[in-house]
Amino acid sequence: MNRIIAGRQPVMEALRAGTEIEKVVFLIGVHGRVIDDIKSLALKRNVLVAEIARQEFRDIASDATTQGVVALVSGQQQYVELETLLHIPGERNQNGLLLILDEIEDPHNLGALVRTAECAGVHGVIIPKHHSASVTSAVAKASAGAVEHMAIAEVTNIVNTIKALKEKGYWIIGLESTGIRLYTEADYRTPTAIVVGSEGKGIRRLVKEQCDFLVKIPLHGKIASLNASVAGALAMYEAAKQRSTS
Amino acid sequence: MNRIIAGRQPVMEALRAGTEIEKVVFLIGVHGRVIDDIKSLALKRNVLVAEIARQEFRDIASDATTQGVVALVSGQQQYVELETLLHIPGERNQNGLLLILDEIEDPHNLGALVRTAECAGVHGVIIPKHHSASVTSAVAKASAGAVEHMAIAEVTNIVNTIKALKEKGYWIIGLESTGIRLYTEADYRTPTAIVVGSEGKGIRRLVKEQCDFLVKIPLHGKIASLNASVAGALAMYEAAKQRSTS
Repeated sequence: MNRIIAGRQPVMEALRAGTEIEKVVFLIGVHGRVIDDIKSLALKRNVLVAEIARQEFRDIASDATTQGVVALVSGQQQYVELETLLHIPGERNQNGLLLILDEIEDPHNLGALVRTAECAGVHGVIIPKHHSASVTSAVAKASAGAVEHMAIAEVTNIVNTIKALKEKGYWIIGLESTGIRLYTEADYRTPTAIVVGSEGKGIRRLVKEQCDFLVKIPLHGKIASLNASVAGALAMYEAAKQRSTS
Repeated sequence: MNRIIAGRQPVMEALRAGTEIEKVVFLIGVHGRVIDDIKSLALKRNVLVAEIARQEFRDIASDATTQGVVALVSGQQQYVELETLLHIPGERNQNGLLLILDEIEDPHNLGALVRTAECAGVHGVIIPKHHSASVTSAVAKASAGAVEHMAIAEVTNIVNTIKALKEKGYWIIGLESTGIRLYTEADYRTPTAIVVGSEGKGIRRLVKEQCDFLVKIPLHGKIASLNASVAGALAMYEAAKQRSTS
C-alpha cells in the first residue's frame, strides 16, 4: 500500500532525507521557487515526476493541505524497532534523549511534537500502538517533514518499555501538573526519556508510577494547562540547553 | 453582531472570566461532567441556557469543533486599546512583558500563542489589523479560552507601535533564525516585547530593523525551523523563568 507525503516542505524534506519515493505528483499549474527546487532535486534523485489535472489530483489526495504537491512512497511509515532506536545515541556519542508520547491522539500535536523533537536533538520518539495517533500523512505534514528524519518506534506496552529503558540506565521524567519540581530543576544530561501525556487526561496512572520524577511547568495565568505540544517543547529545549552548556 | 465561543473548555473559561454571554446553547443529548459544570455555572451567573436539535444547532455553528456547546456573546471580540494594555503591568507591579505577532495568519497558531502567553504571565498581545488572523471563534477555541483573559490590541502599524513602546522604556527582542545571540542569552527582566514573525516569512524587514536584539533558537536537527507557536512559547517561558528567579 502506498503512503502519501503531502505539502511542499514535507516532500522537499523527504527528498532530502533520501526517502524511497516512487513518484512526485504536482497539480497542473502550480509554480514557485519551492516547486522548482522539488523538481530539480527529484531529477537529481532519479525520482519520477508527473503533472496531473485537478480531478485526478483529488483522487490521490482528497484534502486541501497538499499545496499542490504529493509524493507517493512505497509501503507504510517505517517505524523502527526499539532496539534500533536505542543504538542511535551511541552512534552519535551522546547520552540518549528520548520522547515518550502516552496516547497523544491529535495528529496535529503528534506532528508538532516530532518536529520539535527533531529540532531539539532528540534521538527517538516512542508511541504506543493503541489509543494513539499513528504517523499518517496529516502527521507528516504537521511535522513539516520531520517524520522522515526522526526514528519513531511503536510499542505495545509503554510501561514495559519504560522498565526496559530504566534497565539501560535511562531516567524517566514525566510532565505532570501535579509535579513537585519545576521542569527546569530536573537534570536532563544523563540518559533521559521525557514522557508527555495526552492533552485531556495527562499521563496514565500506571505510566506515571514508572516515572523517576514528575515535573511541572509553572502556570502564571487563568488557564489550567498548556497545549501538550508546547509543554513537550519546553521540556525538550530545557534538555537541549542543559546538554549544550555542560 | 453576535460572536460565538465554541467548545466546552472555551465556554467554561468565558463563564469563569465573567464574559457577557447572552445564552449558552447545547446540542440536544450532550452530556458529561464538563457539560454539567457549564450548566451550573451558567445558572449561577444568570446566563440563559438552551438545548436545541442538531439541525438548528448547525445553523448557529457550522463546524465540527463545537463539542456540542456554544456561547453567544454580544458584540465582537473586545480588543483593548494599546494605552489600556500598557497599564496592565503597572497594575500588577511588574515590568511589562508583551508579545507582538507580526502577521501570524494561521488561526491555530494565533490561538496557541495567546494560550501560552496567558500561561507564561504575558501582560498583553499586540497584532496588526491587516495580514493577520483576527480573534475569531476558531482562534478562541485553539486558545482553550485564553482570549477571554488576555488583553489583545489590534494596531494599524507595528513599526509605529514598537517606536512608542521604546519611548516607554521597552526593549524589543525579535525571534529570528539569523540572530547572533541565543534566546536564552537575552535579558527579559526589564520591560520587554517579544516579536514573533509569520511561519513562512519570519519578521518583516522594517519590523526587524526596529528590534533591539535578534535572538535565535538553536536547531539541532535536519529541519530548518520550529513552528511559530513553539518558538514563541520557548521565548515566553525563558522570560517567565528569568522573572521568577530574579
